[in-house]
Amino acid sequence: MTERFSFSLHATDGRARTGTISTPRGEIRTPAFMPVGTAATVKAMLPESVRATGADVLLGNTYHLMLRPTAERIARLGGLHAFMNWERPILTDSGGFQVMSLAELRKLTEEGVTFRSHIDGSRHMLTPERSMEIQRLLGSDIVMCFDECPALPADRDRIAESMRLSMRWAQRSRDAFGDRPGYALFGIQQGGDKEDLRGESAEALRAIGFDGYAVGGLAVGEGQEVMFRVLEYAPEMLPEDKPRYLMGVGKPDDIVGAVKRGIDMMDCVLPSRSGRTGQAFTRRGVVNIKNARHQEDPRPLDERCSCPACRSYSRAYLHHVFRSQEIISSMLLTWHNLHYFQELMQGMRNAIAAGRFAEWETDFHAQRAEGDIEPL
Amino acid sequence: MTERFSFSLHATDGRARTGTISTPRGEIRTPAFMPVGTAATVKAMLPESVRATGADVLLGNTYHLMLRPTAERIARLGGLHAFMNWERPILTDSGGFQVMSLAELRKLTEEGVTFRSHIDGSRHMLTPERSMEIQRLLGSDIVMCFDECPALPADRDRIAESMRLSMRWAQRSRDAFGDRPGYALFGIQQGGDKEDLRGESAEALRAIGFDGYAVGGLAVGEGQEVMFRVLEYAPEMLPEDKPRYLMGVGKPDDIVGAVKRGIDMMDCVLPSRSGRTGQAFTRRGVVNIKNARHQEDPRPLDERCSCPACRSYSRAYLHHVFRSQEIISSMLLTWHNLHYFQELMQGMRNAIAAGRFAEWETDFHAQRAEGDIEPL
Repeated sequence: MTERFSFSLHATDGRARTGTISTPRGEIRTPAFMPVGTAATVKAMLPESVRATGADVLLGNTYHLMLRPTAERIARLGGLHAFMNWERPILTDSGGFQVMSLAELRKLTEEGVTFRSHIDGSRHMLTPERSMEIQRLLGSDIVMCFDECPALPADRDRIAESMRLSMRWAQRSRDAFGDRPGYALFGIQQGGDKEDLRGESAEALRAIGFDGYAVGGLAVGEGQEVMFRVLEYAPEMLPEDKPRYLMGVGKPDDIVGAVKRGIDMMDCVLPSRSGRTGQAFTRRGVVNIKNARHQEDPRPLDERCSCPACRSYSRAYLHHVFRSQEIISSMLLTWHNLHYFQELMQGMRNAIAAGRFAEWETDFHAQRAEGDIEPL
Repeated sequence: MTERFSFSLHATDGRARTGTISTPRGEIRTPAFMPVGTAATVKAMLPESVRATGADVLLGNTYHLMLRPTAERIARLGGLHAFMNWERPILTDSGGFQVMSLAELRKLTEEGVTFRSHIDGSRHMLTPERSMEIQRLLGSDIVMCFDECPALPADRDRIAESMRLSMRWAQRSRDAFGDRPGYALFGIQQGGDKEDLRGESAEALRAIGFDGYAVGGLAVGEGQEVMFRVLEYAPEMLPEDKPRYLMGVGKPDDIVGAVKRGIDMMDCVLPSRSGRTGQAFTRRGVVNIKNARHQEDPRPLDERCSCPACRSYSRAYLHHVFRSQEIISSMLLTWHNLHYFQELMQGMRNAIAAGRFAEWETDFHAQRAEGDIEPL
């Protein structure tokens, strides 16, 4: 085990990259997909099962954890890793994004954001300094700068103003984070869909200096076409020798397109949330297990998948337990989806290492174009 | 593996017994506690986890399964074992009890019971013959006679009339079941809290002849005192060389008292249902995890328990995920409770084999009398 946080690139293929992030809590193979453990649990999964899917790192949500059970309580209980029984790396977001999407009576100033909890209405304030303190109390291995961003589309002035505030907050985050060997602080590029603002943001972050860089302000309603257009230039503005993280992405084809454009890390609630609503991701696209066509289908979701849901259960069973609102439905479909997402990442890592990413991508899209297996 | 259903007694201690039920699908160590898998799942548990708690056999509910996904569909999918991924023995109830407690517009005749589904209002009929057919379609290893019973207290005439109807249905169940090597049919003694009626019922069942015998019509509101009074005489009226099954029991002290009085098998939803409502069973009694006293308690539910919930999580974590309504709360507490119930059975089996059941029982009650550990 290393004592420091570091990143090494093993291979590139076009703009796609594969490498390893080393931390005292273990290695993260990139490109990496991070399951989301919002409230100190990846919903419907035991942490050993999350690990079994191939996940090297989880994401925790500062906003949720600061409200319940609170960062101070988690610190007194030995930190988030011990609390939730996940010994490997954890990345925490800054809380900024979810304050803006979930909290009530938000008020944004230069200092930070005041808001009321969506759980009990209690008043709180988040600032760059407080976000750094909370993420330190949680024991997060990869800490994100406190930032703010508009939903897209937004006008240029709103994007620029927000980006510049986030850059001032990035400096305050850096100052507050201090020197913590073994822990990483990531800056977050903003600038919406404006190339020059993305460039200005990247320069500001480079000047401060971070252990990794996120492309922020995407996956906020702009659609895949706009997102990919931004990813044509935004990642390359960031230092090549540090990991690049695209926040809140995404669907399998979003992920593949992002990796193709030089992204190393991603997170999304999609595999777990979809698991709870009866949607399964497979090589051949999305399966809606609640559909009556599955009610007597003895075949697995995907005959080539080795997850527990596919190894031991028919579509008919998965349909039955979903319709019966049984908890095992969420358990099995979430497991399957997380397994699928991790297999997707492993496939891309292998393809990039072999210099065959383009062929891999063609095959990925071809399999999806086939659509689900024919009904019996 | 045996090809036939059989029961062998290994030891007795007072009236308590320990033995083994052998079936083609595996052995059942008695006294046995059977987790309930109502709708083809033990709620919030994967079947391999249920097995890891020490369960040798599950109970499936005929009423629920006949309505959804239907016995015919399960048969076409290869039977209940394959459908729910549980290869070991399954016992199914006859459906009679749950028709009377869950279905709508019930009408009871000599022929059977007509009712409407509580799920979609569809009309159905259960008779001894239809119940045998459904349990055969499910592939149940231990089939229960179709019966009917009143809640207690009830007057003598109602109990007698109901018992005699159930005895006529027992003969019809026996006739319909036929000769199925490797599968067992259990008769169900009725007679409420009337010793002479219990005797009359036992005689009727003995005359027909079954592979095992249940004490039915208890755990229907009579309370522990009345139940234990009936268990002073009812089990001994049944053949000594066949397993005796007390249906729908119960709390840990009910189970211990029943084993003490000669019961070999039990089932109850309590460990799984309580797990979902934040109640944990421990050596020292019941812990309500939602209580604020646990919110910062770093200790496990039970430091001497080896289940995943106790091995890897604090009371503080269990409190947090319960309060946050996270699925992992149901998963961990159900696992803990099923583990506790199975450890309880193993403790009794060992004590009976060693001729130390009385000492074991004294210790069981002494530990519970201590109450939960002191708050920090």
